[in-house]
Amino acid sequence: MPPWSAEEFEALLREKGTSYHIYHPFHVMMAEGRLTRSQLQGWVANRFYYQIAIPVKDAAILSNCSDREIRREWIQRILDHDGYAQLGDGGGIHDPGGIEAWIRLGEAVGLSRDDVTSLRYVAPAARFAVDAYINFARQRPWQEAVASSLTELFAPHIHQQRIDTWPTQYPWVDTAGLQYFRNRLTQARRDVEHGLRFTLDYFSQSRALQQRALDILQFKLDVLWALADAIMLSQCEVHIAGPRELGARAQ
Amino acid sequence: MPPWSAEEFEALLREKGTSYHIYHPFHVMMAEGRLTRSQLQGWVANRFYYQIAIPVKDAAILSNCSDREIRREWIQRILDHDGYAQLGDGGGIHDPGGIEAWIRLGEAVGLSRDDVTSLRYVAPAARFAVDAYINFARQRPWQEAVASSLTELFAPHIHQQRIDTWPTQYPWVDTAGLQYFRNRLTQARRDVEHGLRFTLDYFSQSRALQQRALDILQFKLDVLWALADAIMLSQCEVHIAGPRELGARAQ
Repeated sequence: MPPWSAEEFEALLREKGTSYHIYHPFHVMMAEGRLTRSQLQGWVANRFYYQIAIPVKDAAILSNCSDREIRREWIQRILDHDGYAQLGDGGGIHDPGGIEAWIRLGEAVGLSRDDVTSLRYVAPAARFAVDAYINFARQRPWQEAVASSLTELFAPHIHQQRIDTWPTQYPWVDTAGLQYFRNRLTQARRDVEHGLRFTLDYFSQSRALQQRALDILQFKLDVLWALADAIMLSQCEVHIAGPRELGARAQ
Repeated sequence: MPPWSAEEFEALLREKGTSYHIYHPFHVMMAEGRLTRSQLQGWVANRFYYQIAIPVKDAAILSNCSDREIRREWIQRILDHDGYAQLGDGGGIHDPGGIEAWIRLGEAVGLSRDDVTSLRYVAPAARFAVDAYINFARQRPWQEAVASSLTELFAPHIHQQRIDTWPTQYPWVDTAGLQYFRNRLTQARRDVEHGLRFTLDYFSQSRALQQRALDILQFKLDVLWALADAIMLSQCEVHIAGPRELGARAQ
């Protein structure tokens, strides 16, 4: 089987968006305004564990990568999340970074800074899902870890959805707290441009390699889905309504 | 605060049994005979991923341990799960090991060997929970990994429960397939004897160290609980029945 063309391969990567966590029952509830204040707080508190994992994951990619040009591009992601304090006057940049923006989102939904940063509300299964992503980046070649970042193809949609719906669905949330989502609209588009270009090229030599990239993207989608499952089980009473057949895929 | 006495410390470790997965809704359903054939198959297929992780986890402990005496005891666990083929005539021991016994359990519930060993029915979140255990053993000092094995304190109860209830609750399961549980009754009691003796001694120097051991045991209990959650969500239709307050602990 010859490799797919770049257009076909990109289309297959984008098709994976059908299993993005925007379709998870908990995220559907969120977008429809059906979460309680406590449930929205629980989401922000649990998801913080993912936020703090991002620069650790990106540092793992740098540590596995001997290509200076790639590192010079990729380091931007760590700066985006950790902020620029370490550059003295920040070279004129005064961005406190995505982790700080997420803490402010926590405050906007009524959590204290300590509620968020202590990790006291993080469900164990949320840690296991996020840690799977960190360990993937540590243990696999950096090119595979780059491919795993491609869930950012689908992120602007979910960020925009929150910016659009929260002010009416959750009017008690201080809209200043939504700055994280606004920042990520721009950053995720730029990041995915780089990651996608790299993936289309690096994995293009064989159909098997392209399939590997698709499997890696599925792994990352599974991480986000499992994170949503963990948050759902920690923030919702659930009843077992009936059996599901072996091999049926959750939707 | 002085350290707890060995008796107090052991009692606190044993108290952790209240969050053992025997109390998870899916395991309660299993013990009450309420699982369908497909659900029981799903449990066996998913749980196989845990079974194959055990010798990998134990090898990580060996690889981090410079104490030959500990290694000479601990290696027994790898042999128990992988079996003795590698010893030629096995020194007279003809045990194919716990992984093979689990595959036969799979056949006894109506799965093919390939259904089990291909891992095709393993839910992503089940992998993430089990991998958290492997990575803990790889990344933490071996003494902590030994403490994490103490969920075996509670295992004979759940194994005995299956031996007692399956023949009446699931009469279609070939009882020869229950040999894994029968073997583990003896092995788990011997293993936990060693692990408990070590943990009571090694962590006895301060209350803080003893608390660390309790936290590690909780981590491992969380792994098993999250594994049961993953299996439940992959094998059951669930309905969200209402919110759960932030910080409420699942029971």
